[in-house]
Amino acid sequence: MQRVLTNQLSAQIGGAVRLAGRIQHRRELSRLVFVVLRDAAGLAQIVVEDEATTAQVAELLPETVVEVDGQAVAAQQAPGGAEVHAPTFRVLALPAAAPPIELRRPELKEQLPTLLDYAPVALRHPRKRAAFQIAAASLAGYRAGLDAHGFTEIQTPKIVASATESGANVFELDYFGRPAFLAQSPQFYKQIMVGVFERVYEVGPVFRAEPHDTPRHLAEYVSLDAELGFIGDYRDVMRFARDAVAGMAEGARARAAEAVELLGVELPDVPEEVPAVDFTEAQELIERDTGKEVVGEPDLAPAHERWLGEWARREHGSDFVFVTGFPMVKRPFYTHPDPERPEVSNSFDLIFRGLELITGGQRLHRYEDYVAALAARGQSIEAYDGYLQAFRYGMPPHGGFAIGLERWVARLTGASNIRETTLFPRDLNRLSP
Amino acid sequence: MQRVLTNQLSAQIGGAVRLAGRIQHRRELSRLVFVVLRDAAGLAQIVVEDEATTAQVAELLPETVVEVDGQAVAAQQAPGGAEVHAPTFRVLALPAAAPPIELRRPELKEQLPTLLDYAPVALRHPRKRAAFQIAAASLAGYRAGLDAHGFTEIQTPKIVASATESGANVFELDYFGRPAFLAQSPQFYKQIMVGVFERVYEVGPVFRAEPHDTPRHLAEYVSLDAELGFIGDYRDVMRFARDAVAGMAEGARARAAEAVELLGVELPDVPEEVPAVDFTEAQELIERDTGKEVVGEPDLAPAHERWLGEWARREHGSDFVFVTGFPMVKRPFYTHPDPERPEVSNSFDLIFRGLELITGGQRLHRYEDYVAALAARGQSIEAYDGYLQAFRYGMPPHGGFAIGLERWVARLTGASNIRETTLFPRDLNRLSP
Repeated sequence: MQRVLTNQLSAQIGGAVRLAGRIQHRRELSRLVFVVLRDAAGLAQIVVEDEATTAQVAELLPETVVEVDGQAVAAQQAPGGAEVHAPTFRVLALPAAAPPIELRRPELKEQLPTLLDYAPVALRHPRKRAAFQIAAASLAGYRAGLDAHGFTEIQTPKIVASATESGANVFELDYFGRPAFLAQSPQFYKQIMVGVFERVYEVGPVFRAEPHDTPRHLAEYVSLDAELGFIGDYRDVMRFARDAVAGMAEGARARAAEAVELLGVELPDVPEEVPAVDFTEAQELIERDTGKEVVGEPDLAPAHERWLGEWARREHGSDFVFVTGFPMVKRPFYTHPDPERPEVSNSFDLIFRGLELITGGQRLHRYEDYVAALAARGQSIEAYDGYLQAFRYGMPPHGGFAIGLERWVARLTGASNIRETTLFPRDLNRLSP
Repeated sequence: MQRVLTNQLSAQIGGAVRLAGRIQHRRELSRLVFVVLRDAAGLAQIVVEDEATTAQVAELLPETVVEVDGQAVAAQQAPGGAEVHAPTFRVLALPAAAPPIELRRPELKEQLPTLLDYAPVALRHPRKRAAFQIAAASLAGYRAGLDAHGFTEIQTPKIVASATESGANVFELDYFGRPAFLAQSPQFYKQIMVGVFERVYEVGPVFRAEPHDTPRHLAEYVSLDAELGFIGDYRDVMRFARDAVAGMAEGARARAAEAVELLGVELPDVPEEVPAVDFTEAQELIERDTGKEVVGEPDLAPAHERWLGEWARREHGSDFVFVTGFPMVKRPFYTHPDPERPEVSNSFDLIFRGLELITGGQRLHRYEDYVAALAARGQSIEAYDGYLQAFRYGMPPHGGFAIGLERWVARLTGASNIRETTLFPRDLNRLSP
């Protein structure tokens, strides 16, 4: 007999059926036992009445992997409106011990460090699983959104010869006896590849040796990068960033509907025109409202991002707001300045529900601008030789952006710690599982 | 005016048109100049007749980035059957020097080391580009093939606490003052995630500190991994591996048709039933044919894979052949043995046109089997604590496989060195660009 998944059980009512999965828990009543089986699709209730089977399942630890043959019967109370009667159980794998996480609870009660220590088990919980189904669906939507605009997917090296963003926060490794580094972003390579394909994206790990233990930083995370050429300026980049996020929301809606419902996620509407506010203007708004002196600071603090998130919701009915016109001083050397105001950058952040989700902007594209920018920072051009080739031999005006996948899912699911939306987080203190 | 790509030029015949791209080269005839423009879609011919424009373009280095306005005119000889007349050129970016690679040639003549040293430029060549368009399309097809079977995409950490495959060939890094390693494969994590989603795949970089400089090994490559639970045995895994490859071929066919044509790639038909040959039987066939003693060797040599590739084509009309029943001795500790012949593994290779493309198989799933397998190799179970949790708390019978993206593209395009199908290869001697 062909196995069916638990969410197909109700379509089998009246017939013989085979399920497979894990025994999540057992409820013993006076004359029968309910066994709850969990598989990839969800839960099913199995009703045991005969003595031999009751004795058999009484021996089985939670998470025992079984195959169950029985009759599919309508049952209003059961998940999906169907349950299995007259079951026979075949054990496929016996656990060596009872699980350290109480997976039977509708919501897990363990603290985050425990859940992370036992991630291989905790992730089996339907609510844990759901966050990563939303991540996978969002990723598919991201790709679909950019594929539709003629982007080409690329894979670029994670072992690199020089730090990408700055010398700080970079992991060093031993590369056949030479020092090498883990890429902090695919920034240089995606720019180079604009010279090849004009529009590119990459989904891959990036590495930051973050010395701070915060709820929003990881030492390794999944970056959704895009870069495109032949732009007017950063505003063209903002339009594609908007479309990428809209694709992600649509991906979650279309491909992870059950997970979205289970977690009660409210998917955002991404406005065709996302509201945008100038950096200094934003600081003035914040200062006027909070009475705190912020104008003149070179960057936004997390509290300011939260304030702007609320402001965008209140004033524009939008979950999203672009901040533009960041000072050059805090932006990396490849950032293109505003031609009219050289101390202001042609870059932007996209704030989603009060958290920076995207950073992007226009990049320098002239070789001599790179030479000057590196000289101004006291850096040698030799260290950037491969990267600078792209500009030395001609590059169109271009720009791009990067989205942190874990942050996106955290904002959607309301997770307060980015570690909740990372399968196996890496941070200052955590290297396993 | 809205820019059009060169492959849309013929649809604009009779009208005004704007192109943008690079000046690939110039051909000066007695009374006119042909300028060949390259963009993301291909090439276009621009005919310059007036004196001022002739003088302007004479100054421009190859790879100058320009916007061109003109008239689209039918022209049988030109690429796509159309060319641009009466052009005006606007320079978007001037290169600082002429490119070190002769991009105007239909096929690049430079040696591989030169092409790799100047990859940011060499990759702009349409034939170079095409290989990576095929890679991107194959990847999309891989995902589509597995999505259709209910697989969930995952991202797992690349910084890990212990070596995956063995202690050899692993890169070590400094992780906040502690030693850590770069993942040689997502093997442990994809198995753990079978306990969560039952069917998973991951596309990501893997890292091997290969001390050998060969045409088929890289220190970093893109691995297409999949793993699935509730299998009977390795033969179920082979079916999904077959479907994954069929998806990749279909992806290339559907999404990279122009690149496939440009390179003259013959996409393989993937038979519904890929021929399979037992390892020992394969050795006997090779020994009988070549007269060389191979029976008893623990693995297949590259020459044997080539022989089997030819044999499969000759005997079965197939570009693919599975080899099954490899000796346990050369397989990693998590490999499931054949229950009837414990010295033989339930694993397989898939050979594509004479090169190992996929390795896969059934894995151990019982906790006690892992404890025994590690003990037999003299390894402590403590080092594998996070991984072993999955089995300690119950795992279904499962298996999976891994495909090297670069090898796939190399086989398709006939590249003799894997570095030709890697954007920015990493090997014993090469760390940049």
